Amino acid sequence: MTTIKDVAKHAKVSVATVSRVLNQKGYVSKEAKQAVESAIKVLNYKPNAVARTLYHKTSGMIGLMIPDISNPFFPELARAIEDAALKEGYTVVLCNTDDQVKKEQHYLHALQQKYVDGVILATGTDSYDHYLALNLPVVGLDRFVSNKIPTVVSDNKKGAIAATEHLVEKGCQFITHLRGPKGLAPADERYQGFKEVVETHGVAHIIVEADFQIERAEAVTRGLLQKHPTIDGIFTSSDVTAAGAMKAAHTCKRVIPDDLQIVGFDGIPFGNMLVPSLTTVQQPIYEMGERATQLLIQLIEKKTMDSYWHELPTTLIQRQTTRGGGGHE
Amino acid sequence: MTTIKDVAKHAKVSVATVSRVLNQKGYVSKEAKQAVESAIKVLNYKPNAVARTLYHKTSGMIGLMIPDISNPFFPELARAIEDAALKEGYTVVLCNTDDQVKKEQHYLHALQQKYVDGVILATGTDSYDHYLALNLPVVGLDRFVSNKIPTVVSDNKKGAIAATEHLVEKGCQFITHLRGPKGLAPADERYQGFKEVVETHGVAHIIVEADFQIERAEAVTRGLLQKHPTIDGIFTSSDVTAAGAMKAAHTCKRVIPDDLQIVGFDGIPFGNMLVPSLTTVQQPIYEMGERATQLLIQLIEKKTMDSYWHELPTTLIQRQTTRGGGGHE
Repeated sequence: MTTIKDVAKHAKVSVATVSRVLNQKGYVSKEAKQAVESAIKVLNYKPNAVARTLYHKTSGMIGLMIPDISNPFFPELARAIEDAALKEGYTVVLCNTDDQVKKEQHYLHALQQKYVDGVILATGTDSYDHYLALNLPVVGLDRFVSNKIPTVVSDNKKGAIAATEHLVEKGCQFITHLRGPKGLAPADERYQGFKEVVETHGVAHIIVEADFQIERAEAVTRGLLQKHPTIDGIFTSSDVTAAGAMKAAHTCKRVIPDDLQIVGFDGIPFGNMLVPSLTTVQQPIYEMGERATQLLIQLIEKKTMDSYWHELPTTLIQRQTTRGGGGHE
Repeated sequence: MTTIKDVAKHAKVSVATVSRVLNQKGYVSKEAKQAVESAIKVLNYKPNAVARTLYHKTSGMIGLMIPDISNPFFPELARAIEDAALKEGYTVVLCNTDDQVKKEQHYLHALQQKYVDGVILATGTDSYDHYLALNLPVVGLDRFVSNKIPTVVSDNKKGAIAATEHLVEKGCQFITHLRGPKGLAPADERYQGFKEVVETHGVAHIIVEADFQIERAEAVTRGLLQKHPTIDGIFTSSDVTAAGAMKAAHTCKRVIPDDLQIVGFDGIPFGNMLVPSLTTVQQPIYEMGERATQLLIQLIEKKTMDSYWHELPTTLIQRQTTRGGGGHE
């Protein structure tokens, strides 16, 4: 491999001169500059990325902090981030934190040691102080971190309102909301949207907390359907939760959508693989990942930014778990 | 941040001496060594990872080449790889190649420039020559690359035999195999396993190629069920394909498992979210990722390796899409 020494020798200048030309810093005579540029061309010299990292303290890498790539919300997000990063010449380091502060800190330390240029934060820990202290470009994704940090979220409350109104319009008179964990902003906002609609319309309802695991959602729904046989609608805080509710409905011999209508939240691909296919609130997952990456790169490259708050719209997708969605009635 | 210069100043030695101590190379007097070690402790100096990378030409990073993280087979694999890497102090760079040679080459170049220590290859391109030329530790995962490269696969043929025998035992008399793309080793091996069983037992069968997309699987199955109303069993080359077949069965009003029994392949979590839940051949996805990472790190650290060929066993998981699986009959 051609080294900087070879270039210096060929151009008949010192290594320091070649370095000054490469880094566009310090004085270099016109002749020396031409000689170095010609030597680089002739020898097909590629400046070493690691050496440049050491000099410029940038690496062309961004860290992606997510709770768990095997949670089906995150693969599409990771894909979008990687695509957008690739377009701008950046690579992505994947970090699964399991929402544990200790793992996060371990990664942050490792990433800083490697001069990672910035971090996309899609994890749900309580404390963000260690990020603010980083002096490293950070973008919050699907999480509100701080108003000092650009943030990309979807319109969770409006999405929940659309979902709940849809159930009311389709005739539901006793609606369950399987809400996500308290304290997690997206789950709280969806809960608020649900609350607003059922209270405005005076609809009977029951709210139960379920995490985003299918087994728990199934068990909770089974219990609810047995205790309250008149429940005729369910709005869940995620599509995985909705899949659990559908399994419980099947066990309890409730026909979807005739006896029971269900609306999920997320719009991950597998909702469309279910039978009947799931009516859901589609988050613009790919666009969210793309936007967060673009914002991070703007921060890294010190470009101006119009706004730090980016709330992208959700869309209700009617499929077969609510009436009139075709195919199943 | 404390630099190597601060350490040298504090220890009253040259920067070169500190460097020799850090890298354990070259002569350093006992006194100088003690002074440097004490200065490192007092100043809480952490040798810069990038500088060490430049010196040792290692980075503590491994590249993961997969076709597409949003294909549901890959998130669990990526998770396992990241977990195993973390345990050994490595971080993972995620690369989605879409099985395009051009994208692969781009990544390989970028990874080499960053002195990535090794690459896990789970992509399906035809040519591997550019890998062999790399002089970089490489492990093949779910793909056979070359017998010069450690390879981790699952026992695709045995899994397919178990799946097909299960359908025969459950009384199927006319079985469809929705096979994966020709030339892709795992798909070819599953096809061979299927072939062997139906020919041994003299069972009527029809084999059609489908990619791993749900829409195509649904369309193909719908056509088959309309043309051949006596088809009573389907073995698919992936779980996503099976989900498509289930949607088609629903449209054609075939009751699963009474009229039609289905077995998938992969064992990804969403198979258990379907109603009825999917009987499938479970690949040890997490273990495959873990083993590949351990082998790569052994290669990187120049440790001895007993075998380059690691074939992990598959397991038939009976759920509700075949008879006797409970819950649905």
